[in-house]
Amino acid sequence: MVNDGRDQPVEGRFDGAEHRFPVRVYFEDTDLSGVVYHANYLRFMERARSDMLRVAGIDQRAAMEAGEGAYAVARMNIRYLAPARLDDALLVASKLLKVHAAHVVVHQAVRRGEVILAEAEVVAAWVAPEGGPKRQPAEWTRRFKELMLGEPQA
Amino acid sequence: MVNDGRDQPVEGRFDGAEHRFPVRVYFEDTDLSGVVYHANYLRFMERARSDMLRVAGIDQRAAMEAGEGAYAVARMNIRYLAPARLDDALLVASKLLKVHAAHVVVHQAVRRGEVILAEAEVVAAWVAPEGGPKRQPAEWTRRFKELMLGEPQA
Amino acid sequence: MVNDGRDQPVEGRFDGAEHRFPVRVYFEDTDLSGVVYHANYLRFMERARSDMLRVAGIDQRAAMEAGEGAYAVARMNIRYLAPARLDDALLVASKLLKVHAAHVVVHQAVRRGEVILAEAEVVAAWVAPEGGPKRQPAEWTRRFKELMLGEPQA
Amino acid sequence: MVNDGRDQPVEGRFDGAEHRFPVRVYFEDTDLSGVVYHANYLRFMERARSDMLRVAGIDQRAAMEAGEGAYAVARMNIRYLAPARLDDALLVASKLLKVHAAHVVVHQAVRRGEVILAEAEVVAAWVAPEGGPKRQPAEWTRRFKELMLGEPQA
Repeated sequence: MVNDGRDQPVEGRFDGAEHRFPVRVYFEDTDLSGVVYHANYLRFMERARSDMLRVAGIDQRAAMEAGEGAYAVARMNIRYLAPARLDDALLVASKLLKVHAAHVVVHQAVRRGEVILAEAEVVAAWVAPEGGPKRQPAEWTRRFKELMLGEPQA
Repeated sequence: MVNDGRDQPVEGRFDGAEHRFPVRVYFEDTDLSGVVYHANYLRFMERARSDMLRVAGIDQRAAMEAGEGAYAVARMNIRYLAPARLDDALLVASKLLKVHAAHVVVHQAVRRGEVILAEAEVVAAWVAPEGGPKRQPAEWTRRFKELMLGEPQA
Repeated sequence: MVNDGRDQPVEGRFDGAEHRFPVRVYFEDTDLSGVVYHANYLRFMERARSDMLRVAGIDQRAAMEAGEGAYAVARMNIRYLAPARLDDALLVASKLLKVHAAHVVVHQAVRRGEVILAEAEVVAAWVAPEGGPKRQPAEWTRRFKELMLGEPQA
Repeated sequence: MVNDGRDQPVEGRFDGAEHRFPVRVYFEDTDLSGVVYHANYLRFMERARSDMLRVAGIDQRAAMEAGEGAYAVARMNIRYLAPARLDDALLVASKLLKVHAAHVVVHQAVRRGEVILAEAEVVAAWVAPEGGPKRQPAEWTRRFKELMLGEPQA
């Protein structure tokens, strides 16, 4: 098998200040009630936040491996509005609401077409390997402020 | 192998109005940051709510199989205060805050000893098989009100 | 937000008889040992099999909703050869090995570039809603035989 | 809340050479087909293997934190025989089949009463933090050989 560059995982993109990340619903995501299990929306949202960092040029894996720190969810307020089903093509739309020295606040909505299925405010804190809160790398904070202004190609 | 009744899954119990449900942290619950992945606290809390129903004598599987309805999380507000690690013995403490005709509000805290690791308010709505909100069985509503008053052995 | 068709989930494709499906590794997939948790390769492989059906024009959700049946894994033999890490771009390569009336055998390999991380033979049986084995729709069996011969555009 | 020692997670036990570990099925374990999702049996089996180590007096978390190594599944051959449903009380029965210097082979069966739902042979290899195979601690190998002979209280 030669990989000619076509077989790449999905990547989100910025449309102004909004990051958009597509998700497909698989068996693993559903439960016996026939729809997506509520905790799995948090997985979809985390994938979208990780993708948002990647697209913005921020390498969180390198920061973790260098022992600098990692993002941890500190708080989340989520509303479930309509169910998602097997095979549904969803979109996670994310926007930075606030950028502080040691944490950011993100609004995320999971949509199927024009219908909002779930939406949340997420507080993600930068945490030292030993567990305490810590200032994010200054360059990242600057980058986040650009993204809030809809300048993804900084 | 003869099962002599000893090998039973853990069951929670009521202490007054508080339901207590123990959870062990396994590999599946952690992520590469070394601690429990944030979405997995929602799994722990759902286990505790399901156990609370079982201990209270409510059979949600029978209700689902009879096509009556199922509980769906409508809203959740969760704070993450301290991390949990592999092998930790946790306790999920749950209390009914409000009982309405078509939904209940539950406060849940995940503790390790005296330390609160996460806490949440959860709105669980009773939903018809077609998806709309619906009154819970009257007997269940009555039962929940007893539980709120700390009368688990009604 | 207007969806202009760009924000779609990833879709695999056939290269001759081989179906290729890309997967990105997220936090949810790893455990505290720093690499992908072994059970999660089964999720990746199931996503690839579901995608293979979709790309081949087979609608398993419609068949489930019509009460016809569903695929269930009957047997799986998996070897783990090398670990996958956060952010890795993986490829699941799947090939039908055998097509029987009531089950198929699929070979699946999870690769990162040229390195095989895990590979498995999976027996997937078509099961009636009551649980017993059942012949797959005749059209599907015919379709699978074309796919084995590397004729995806039947 | 005072924890008086009653609210502990379930612990398995040895009956001769067989380790028995109870598991309850929750919503998170099922998928829309109404039964336990196939990959989740691997989670149940891993919980049982971790419990087996704990009951045998082996502290894998301490070994990981000391940088000695960790177990990784190298191979697994699993048969799915009958489905498990929400609320089912299951038992994972595990037996060591072989003990080698750098890996062990375990037979595991998931049962509901007398019915075997799934069974597997699992090869678990001891792996250095950098990823290569490594001899298990000599004391552990000795302990495993006692367990194979049905001498859990060594």
